[in-house]
Amino acid sequence: MLKAKVTVILKNSILDPQGSAVEKALRSMDYPVESVRIGKFMEVNLPEEARDQAEEIMHEICRKLLSNPVIEDYSFELEG
Amino acid sequence: MLKAKVTVILKNSILDPQGSAVEKALRSMDYPVESVRIGKFMEVNLPEEARDQAEEIMHEICRKLLSNPVIEDYSFELEG
Repeated sequence: MLKAKVTVILKNSILDPQGSAVEKALRSMDYPVESVRIGKFMEVNLPEEARDQAEEIMHEICRKLLSNPVIEDYSFELEG
Repeated sequence: MLKAKVTVILKNSILDPQGSAVEKALRSMDYPVESVRIGKFMEVNLPEEARDQAEEIMHEICRKLLSNPVIEDYSFELEG
């Protein structure tokens, strides 16, 4: 079995209110934090038969369903 | 500046309805997918002065604020 670890995060130019809220919370708890950005993490398991096209399939899945390419960047690693 | 890349994901024993929904959507689009699990991804930037205690600080932050240790597992990598 192949495992794809996908991270999706807002582009730098896009405001991240969830990240700002966590940053403020951490500062109020006296942690030395400069900035926080929050995104999504996904593990997609693919069957062995898909090994040859795995990279292509993952790019398609990321563009079509897992991220919004207008405001988010994605990256993934294949394992196994 | 130090960057911590944190991933938080539901423990294996915990149902992940969001992951199941994405899995079904991908199957209905004819992608060969075995399973999907969805979690969170966070980038925390720490100041240079925190380098020595960075690992300790991140464990504390992850336990106290970024994850719910009852149902989630966290991991992080330090960069820079």
